[in-house]
Amino acid sequence: MAQIDLNSDVGESFGNWTIGDDAAILRTVSSANIACGFHAGDPLTIRATATEAVTNDVVIGAHIGYRDLAGFGRRHLECSPDELAADVLYQLGALEGIAGAVGSQIRYVKPHGALYHSMISHTGHAHAVIDTIAAYGESTGRDLPVLLLPGSIALDYAAEAGLRGISEAFADRSYNPDGTLVSRREPDAVLHDTEQIVENMLRLAEESVLIARDGTRIETQAESICTHGDTAGAVAMAQAVRTALEGAGVEIRSFA
Amino acid sequence: MAQIDLNSDVGESFGNWTIGDDAAILRTVSSANIACGFHAGDPLTIRATATEAVTNDVVIGAHIGYRDLAGFGRRHLECSPDELAADVLYQLGALEGIAGAVGSQIRYVKPHGALYHSMISHTGHAHAVIDTIAAYGESTGRDLPVLLLPGSIALDYAAEAGLRGISEAFADRSYNPDGTLVSRREPDAVLHDTEQIVENMLRLAEESVLIARDGTRIETQAESICTHGDTAGAVAMAQAVRTALEGAGVEIRSFA
Amino acid sequence: MAQIDLNSDVGESFGNWTIGDDAAILRTVSSANIACGFHAGDPLTIRATATEAVTNDVVIGAHIGYRDLAGFGRRHLECSPDELAADVLYQLGALEGIAGAVGSQIRYVKPHGALYHSMISHTGHAHAVIDTIAAYGESTGRDLPVLLLPGSIALDYAAEAGLRGISEAFADRSYNPDGTLVSRREPDAVLHDTEQIVENMLRLAEESVLIARDGTRIETQAESICTHGDTAGAVAMAQAVRTALEGAGVEIRSFA
Amino acid sequence: MAQIDLNSDVGESFGNWTIGDDAAILRTVSSANIACGFHAGDPLTIRATATEAVTNDVVIGAHIGYRDLAGFGRRHLECSPDELAADVLYQLGALEGIAGAVGSQIRYVKPHGALYHSMISHTGHAHAVIDTIAAYGESTGRDLPVLLLPGSIALDYAAEAGLRGISEAFADRSYNPDGTLVSRREPDAVLHDTEQIVENMLRLAEESVLIARDGTRIETQAESICTHGDTAGAVAMAQAVRTALEGAGVEIRSFA
Repeated sequence: MAQIDLNSDVGESFGNWTIGDDAAILRTVSSANIACGFHAGDPLTIRATATEAVTNDVVIGAHIGYRDLAGFGRRHLECSPDELAADVLYQLGALEGIAGAVGSQIRYVKPHGALYHSMISHTGHAHAVIDTIAAYGESTGRDLPVLLLPGSIALDYAAEAGLRGISEAFADRSYNPDGTLVSRREPDAVLHDTEQIVENMLRLAEESVLIARDGTRIETQAESICTHGDTAGAVAMAQAVRTALEGAGVEIRSFA
Repeated sequence: MAQIDLNSDVGESFGNWTIGDDAAILRTVSSANIACGFHAGDPLTIRATATEAVTNDVVIGAHIGYRDLAGFGRRHLECSPDELAADVLYQLGALEGIAGAVGSQIRYVKPHGALYHSMISHTGHAHAVIDTIAAYGESTGRDLPVLLLPGSIALDYAAEAGLRGISEAFADRSYNPDGTLVSRREPDAVLHDTEQIVENMLRLAEESVLIARDGTRIETQAESICTHGDTAGAVAMAQAVRTALEGAGVEIRSFA
Repeated sequence: MAQIDLNSDVGESFGNWTIGDDAAILRTVSSANIACGFHAGDPLTIRATATEAVTNDVVIGAHIGYRDLAGFGRRHLECSPDELAADVLYQLGALEGIAGAVGSQIRYVKPHGALYHSMISHTGHAHAVIDTIAAYGESTGRDLPVLLLPGSIALDYAAEAGLRGISEAFADRSYNPDGTLVSRREPDAVLHDTEQIVENMLRLAEESVLIARDGTRIETQAESICTHGDTAGAVAMAQAVRTALEGAGVEIRSFA
Repeated sequence: MAQIDLNSDVGESFGNWTIGDDAAILRTVSSANIACGFHAGDPLTIRATATEAVTNDVVIGAHIGYRDLAGFGRRHLECSPDELAADVLYQLGALEGIAGAVGSQIRYVKPHGALYHSMISHTGHAHAVIDTIAAYGESTGRDLPVLLLPGSIALDYAAEAGLRGISEAFADRSYNPDGTLVSRREPDAVLHDTEQIVENMLRLAEESVLIARDGTRIETQAESICTHGDTAGAVAMAQAVRTALEGAGVEIRSFA
């Protein structure tokens, strides 16, 4: 039986500011990337989100980011690898403490925003993140898988460190024939046709294949589908993907 | 054999700003109140401090505070009990993650600054802190003692919650006959005479008695002595206290 | 011809987080309370908001707050009067710089959230705010009026300092016979009936009278009506008030 | 009569954290680069520093930085030019408000840390900074000179914008024959010999010449000497330079 994971970013509200329909998306996905307070997520939000994840039987992942609330973690911050390592450790511990208090624990890690992009080719930051996750695994006795963009150098480092690197695919993005994402600067970077998206994700789950915008079949090892919960349309799309996958007998379950 | 604990605040540097001679004070005390990032302490500082505590065989405590870097946690922040509970949980988890990565763990909790003062009589905040520590103990399987000012209402709440409440004495402060601290607004609030301080602390360790400024003998249950590391004079004082206690055969060991 | 001011909070978004339909509310009010970065409002948001205020010929006021992004300035922060004074000065300058760059200037000041409430009876904070605004007026050559809750002690201090204190009324709140607001803990604290609200505000503009929930007529010196832009319903309500006032020949213009 | 400016970073304390002997260095320099709150400097510190600058007849400059307290503005932050422009405007206004309240005003701008380095070749950030300073000059009626590293692309942009770009020399750094600084990774990057430093700075003031580490004479247009106040040794060095310059009849005065 085919299976695949659906993940989404949650817990990104902060104080009086709200982002995303977390309640709806947590009824849809199998893995919740919960913000850890550095790019988004105050402790009360994080605790409420973790509670809701547990209620919905959704696996909790640590959505770690650069220390930049004003930029929502979307701006590269050229901190030292040592600073980054300590920042990551702090975020993992903070989320773990909250997850534990609601009867759960962190089960994977996904870098956020600019840090996610740094995992592609910034060797210093990629090493810092992977090494920290590995060390965290040693101290807790649980090695955490790392969710990344296919082709990220951090996937190699994860393998070297004995960690599972998980690739993800993007439901609403179009692909180049080489498997990279079509740049957002190009007009057809983002897909809007629900039928097409559902078809793509079904093929991914069943055949491990993505179709590039020129029709090329791309073999992929993606084990998770990234969905969004920040707009009503995005939530509806995620729900449509889940419904179609389940209708086709695909099991939605976390890789972690 | 008499024994007592020496505690001090450490890990209160932040980024490029340094406070305190942590290396020296960590060679002197038995319990380290490590800042958790809300009133002071960036992750790199916290990790370095935790490492140094481990090296010196000093027990790690979580020095939790209000979310107020600009005020160093010394200003009362009238957050809701729920916000405070989540903030405390987040700080405990963050420090635990770092302590774990350096081969140790949190062994007690001490509220800092304005939060320490709120524990005296602010029922909402005292309940939030104690309840959170109790819940944290349940999720980790380790109940953490709480270090407080004698007479704090939070000591009562701790007892009700089945937690150990630990009272502390202040090496460099003078006392009223009722056991409360002489207000800092009064000229003789702070003691400067090393000999007198050493004598007082020796008496405390051996007889569980403090001498008020009018000579009254005060029975006390203080199990820890609060010392400071933020000036050279303070460090020297702490060292003098330790040396005198050890010379008199008192064992310096953490209550935790 | 009767006239009255409509004011509303704007510029309270922060980074990736959005609050309020500022564009809509700025087409409705005559005075814009622009956040200054301490409780809300990043510089880019502030600049965009100030630009939009200028476009709509809306007067710019400084919405100053406690330094507490995580609490949106709604939590009392017991900072020293001196700290508060410097914080206020910093915020005034920051907004003035941005207002100047878009061809305008600050024309009044309104304390936000918990700071607004401190103006009622916290003598230290009320003095700090009023004295700072007075000093700012001296250095810029423009004395700024201060928008406050009727009965605030800061209104007295403003008078003593030679500043105009402006009282405001709340369109959507019910009043006690003594002119104070019905507490939000009571079920009928907030009004929802547009017709009633419009009638009340018309009476206020034309007769300087508010009607308490028991029918008592309350003479008031309120020169401004506080409206909200944070929900679609609130914006519609503000627009209904404006339309009704204009329809009755009341001029909507800022007090500043 | 030869003349030159001495500048130094001040106002970089934050809350309970202190950096630098500002009182001593403000008795030594002619231009004070005052932190504006984004990389360092809380409002109370800024106000005290501006007051002390006025007392010592030292010209106030705005030491603008990236929004990164945890990194002290020393880490490159890849914000958008538009975000940076608004951040700079906000900082200029904030410091201006405080400077005005103590009877003075901003007279020049110096980017700090990583932002200073971005001015060398980061076209987007250099344009954002220069354009903002130019716009600020238009709105205030006072064009502010910009203090930069020789060779910075922002010096060209400043010239294009009609702003004075001022180059500075570093008292304690050695130079390559092409006028660039010897990298801090090389052992002789920093000079420690007071006599040599004094001699160099005297030559600079009198002949507009720096001597590279291989003896090459470098013609320079530096109009200001950067000194430091963060250590006792640095302050002593700055004072020695000032004493020597004055002894040789060089006038110490700000370029602004």
